[in-house]
Amino acid sequence: MAGVDDGVFFPAEKLRAWTELVFQRIGVSREDAALLTDSMIEANLRGVDTHGITRMLCVYVKRMQVGVVNPKTQLQVVREHPSTALIDCRNGIGQVASRHAMRLTMEKAKTTGVAFVATTHSNHYGMAAYWAMMALPAGMIGFSSTNAPAAVAPTGGRTPMMGTNPFAIAIPAGVEQPMVLDMATTVVARGRIILHAKQNKPLEPGWAFDERGAPTTDPLEAAKGLLAPIGGYKGYGIALAVDFLSGVLTGSNYGAHFPGFLADNLSDPTDVGSIFAAINVANFMDLPEFQARMDAAIREIKASAKAEGVTRIYIPGEIEFETRAKRLAEGIPIPEQIVQDFVALGKEVGVPFPAVGA
Amino acid sequence: MAGVDDGVFFPAEKLRAWTELVFQRIGVSREDAALLTDSMIEANLRGVDTHGITRMLCVYVKRMQVGVVNPKTQLQVVREHPSTALIDCRNGIGQVASRHAMRLTMEKAKTTGVAFVATTHSNHYGMAAYWAMMALPAGMIGFSSTNAPAAVAPTGGRTPMMGTNPFAIAIPAGVEQPMVLDMATTVVARGRIILHAKQNKPLEPGWAFDERGAPTTDPLEAAKGLLAPIGGYKGYGIALAVDFLSGVLTGSNYGAHFPGFLADNLSDPTDVGSIFAAINVANFMDLPEFQARMDAAIREIKASAKAEGVTRIYIPGEIEFETRAKRLAEGIPIPEQIVQDFVALGKEVGVPFPAVGA
Repeated sequence: MAGVDDGVFFPAEKLRAWTELVFQRIGVSREDAALLTDSMIEANLRGVDTHGITRMLCVYVKRMQVGVVNPKTQLQVVREHPSTALIDCRNGIGQVASRHAMRLTMEKAKTTGVAFVATTHSNHYGMAAYWAMMALPAGMIGFSSTNAPAAVAPTGGRTPMMGTNPFAIAIPAGVEQPMVLDMATTVVARGRIILHAKQNKPLEPGWAFDERGAPTTDPLEAAKGLLAPIGGYKGYGIALAVDFLSGVLTGSNYGAHFPGFLADNLSDPTDVGSIFAAINVANFMDLPEFQARMDAAIREIKASAKAEGVTRIYIPGEIEFETRAKRLAEGIPIPEQIVQDFVALGKEVGVPFPAVGA
Repeated sequence: MAGVDDGVFFPAEKLRAWTELVFQRIGVSREDAALLTDSMIEANLRGVDTHGITRMLCVYVKRMQVGVVNPKTQLQVVREHPSTALIDCRNGIGQVASRHAMRLTMEKAKTTGVAFVATTHSNHYGMAAYWAMMALPAGMIGFSSTNAPAAVAPTGGRTPMMGTNPFAIAIPAGVEQPMVLDMATTVVARGRIILHAKQNKPLEPGWAFDERGAPTTDPLEAAKGLLAPIGGYKGYGIALAVDFLSGVLTGSNYGAHFPGFLADNLSDPTDVGSIFAAINVANFMDLPEFQARMDAAIREIKASAKAEGVTRIYIPGEIEFETRAKRLAEGIPIPEQIVQDFVALGKEVGVPFPAVGA
C-alpha cells in the first residue's frame, strides 16, 4: 500500500550488507545493526517503504550522529511478573528494545499462555508487523502497537493530540499465508503524505486536514496539518486507547507532549512507548487443528463472491507476502533522489553505496 | 449513539425487577436472571438501546422458550493455564459465560499481570463494554470482543463473511470518568439498521450496502444486505482478526457459518465465540500515578482547540456516562411499540408489565 515501484532496483542482500555497515560505522553493535537493518529491509521487501531504508535510514543515522538517540542500547527491565514486563529502552534504538520485548513476551506466553510487555523511553520502532510476526514461527498469535508524535485531532478538535498509533496482529495459518494486519489508525500513514510531498503527488480526498481542520489534498498542507482517523470517532477512540496503553501506562510521552521522532527533531529524545503481546495457540486448540481451521477460513473468504470489477479478494498481509517474493526476485526499488541521499551518506560515513551492478 | 429518546419513560429499577422475574419464569436461575437483566438495563441506561431490553428481551425470551438457547447455563472450563482459559458455554446464556470468563480473567491477571480467556459454543453476549468495564474497579484495563453472524463482506467481496464483531476497551482514570471505547467494526451496528427499519427512518449514506453490494440508505434493503466496515480494508482486517480469535481459535462458528442469533433464527444454536482480557495496571505503574496521568491526559484532550461550530470534545464513553446519569434520573425511554410487546410478553409468562406510575 505504502510502496513505490519506480526507482532503481537493488538486490535486498546488497542493501542489507551496506546498511549494516553504515550502522556499525556510527557506533551500533554488530548484532543490533543486523536487527535494525533486517527490520528495515523487511519493510522494503513487503512494500512498506515508509518504514524501510528508503525513508528511515538517513533519519535514523542523523539522529544517532547528533546524539538524540543512543546507538548503544542498554535496556533495563523495570518491572517483571509471570506474564508482564516493563522494559526501559533508555533512549536507545526502538527496534532493539522491541526485539527484546517480543522475545520476552513469547517466552512468558509459552509458560502462562499469554503475555503483555511494554517498552518505555524508546524510539521509533519501524514496521509494527515485524514484531507481531515474530510470534508466528512459535505457533503464537502476535500483537504490537506504539504511540507516536501527534498528527490526529480528537473528533471535534483541530489540535493534533494523538499519533497515527499503528498496530499489527499476526495470526498463523497452515498451508496458507498467515494473516498479518498492520495498520495505522488513520486513513493513511504520515509517511505516505510525506512520500507524496516528496514526489509532488496530490493526496486522495479524505486522507487529511490542513492546519485549520479543513480537508485538503495538498500533501504540503497536509504535512503541516492533521491525518484523518478511520471511521471518525471510532478511529479516534482506537488511537486514544493505543496512546493510553503505550504512553500513559508505560510512563512515556503521550498526546501532544512528543517532540518529533524523525528528521523534524534533532534535539530532544522522543520517549515513545510501545506494547507487545502474544497468545500461545496451543493453550486453546492444538496447533495443527488451528492451522487447518485457519486455512479453511482463509479459503472461504478468498472464494467468496466478488463485487463487480473485482478479480480477487485479499487477506490482510497477502499483498505484502507477494510483494516480498517479487522484490526478493527483482530487487527493491529505490527512488533516484534517495539513491543520491544514500551515495552522500555512504561517502560521509566511509561506506560507499554499492553501484547497481557491483 | 445507538439510543432512542422518544417513547414512554420507565424507572430503571422498575424495568429491572420486571425483567428479572420474566427470565426466572422461563427457567433462568435467580442469579443468572439478575446478571442478564443488569447487563441489559445497563445498556439501556448508557443509551445503547440496541443491546438493552428494548431490542433484546423478547428475542432472548423467545430463543430460550423454544429451546434454542439453554436457560440453565452449565459452564465447563475446557483448558486452563496460569494466564489463559477456554470456557465451554454449552449453548447456555452468553452473559453468564462472559461474567465467568471476565472474573477468571481478572483473577488470573491479579496474579500474572495479564490474562486472556475465551468462551466457545456461546450466544449473544450483549454490550461489549459491560465485560470490559468489570475490570475497572479492580484497577485493571479490560477488553472484550465477540464474533457474530455475518453482515460484512471482505474488501472487494459482496457476500457477508464476517459479523460486526464489536470490541470494547475500558481504561480506568482517577477523578475523571474512565475511557470506555465500545465499537462495532462497522460504521454502524446492525441493531441501528433494524431500529431505523422499525422506525421507518432512512439511513445515513455510507452506513450500508444492499444485497448486490451497492450503497443504500433504505433500512429494509440494508437489513438484507451488508454493513460497511470502518476505513474500508482496515475495518475488514479488524473484523477478520476478531473472527479468527473469537471463532477459529475457540472452536466456535466463524465467517459465513453462523445461523442468526436473534429472532431470525429460532432453530439452531448460534455457537458464538467471545474473548476477554485484562491487564493489571499496577504491574506497570502504581495505580495512583496511573490515575493521575490518565486524568491529565483526558483533560488535555478535552481542553484542546475545537473545530468550528464544536462546543465540546468527548472522551470515548463520556456520552454514555452522561446518558446513564440522565436516564437514572428521568427513566429509560421505551418506544410505544415495544411497550406493547412487553405488555404481551408479561401476559404470556404471567408477570404483568408495570404501568408507568405503578
